[in-house]
Amino acid sequence: GEGGVEIDELVRVPVVRLAIGEVAESSVVVVLPVCRAEGREIELEAAPWECGMEGNFGIVQAEKGWKQWVVLPGWSPVVPLKRGGVVVAFPQARGVLPWKGKRRDADEEVLVVADRGRKEVEYDDGFYLVVSGGNGSGEEGLKVERGAKLKEMGVEKSLGTVVLVVRPPREEMDDQLGDDAWE
Amino acid sequence: GEGGVEIDELVRVPVVRLAIGEVAESSVVVVLPVCRAEGREIELEAAPWECGMEGNFGIVQAEKGWKQWVVLPGWSPVVPLKRGGVVVAFPQARGVLPWKGKRRDADEEVLVVADRGRKEVEYDDGFYLVVSGGNGSGEEGLKVERGAKLKEMGVEKSLGTVVLVVRPPREEMDDQLGDDAWE
Repeated sequence: GEGGVEIDELVRVPVVRLAIGEVAESSVVVVLPVCRAEGREIELEAAPWECGMEGNFGIVQAEKGWKQWVVLPGWSPVVPLKRGGVVVAFPQARGVLPWKGKRRDADEEVLVVADRGRKEVEYDDGFYLVVSGGNGSGEEGLKVERGAKLKEMGVEKSLGTVVLVVRPPREEMDDQLGDDAWE
Repeated sequence: GEGGVEIDELVRVPVVRLAIGEVAESSVVVVLPVCRAEGREIELEAAPWECGMEGNFGIVQAEKGWKQWVVLPGWSPVVPLKRGGVVVAFPQARGVLPWKGKRRDADEEVLVVADRGRKEVEYDDGFYLVVSGGNGSGEEGLKVERGAKLKEMGVEKSLGTVVLVVRPPREEMDDQLGDDAWE
């Protein structure tokens, strides 16, 4: 619905799947700067903090130049981001999002929308952007971690609070019979 | 309609009025760098030429950083702009667009979408971005001129061919009776 988000994960952060053409369906769109997860906190902090849309045409006025941008539907968790909103593009959800168990969609790319203005690790069941790796467990970069785990490790500050996770549109639209139907 | 443009001026360049929420109605949106008309050709040429949308999320990948961007519906003249597409924001249509006669909407802001890859003044009834003023006739900046007039003056190269002029949404939506009805 208008500005609403359908939650498909029982976590405090809504995880939504973008529908094909959906950037369209709300009367509001939001434009946010995009960082690569491999760019770590340097790129994350460098991305412009002020990116308001102004005037009758909604022209994005960023405080500084930036190369990568994304247009998202005006989903309710995203619209209130006034300063510090940012999107991190992860090539794979696996190893980045703390999913439980094996998931078929773990190799999908995901966008993580975060609020850099809220760095404090506040809620146990909240999700936060942190730097990962460099300890042999994988490549250095950004990842998403639960508040409870960060608190256990004594981490009080994150790079930002995750407000939304966006999955790519499904490409099954012209394939009315799913794979399951053919077994 | 889908990707269509309603033409409301009898010129070779379509002039459209953006509807409130319309950035939404097409399944395609286009993101273009925006220049101020006062920025003249320096800013126009400096704006990134490559701004393709990539991947499942349509992330804009510009060749260089830029501060000002606009999201437009996927109108047919705009979608084919691959390299060199740019938007010039004019605070007033008056003195910038070669309207015939007096027009009530001449004090509206307009966006001019141009293709910097097509600089040649090709068609008499085409419209082209050029530098104006500095000759006492007004402030220096960009303006739109007819091909025929440029040819008369011996001008063969412009800053780009105008492909679309966009007017702001009308603000009369919640005012069903216009001013005229109350005289």
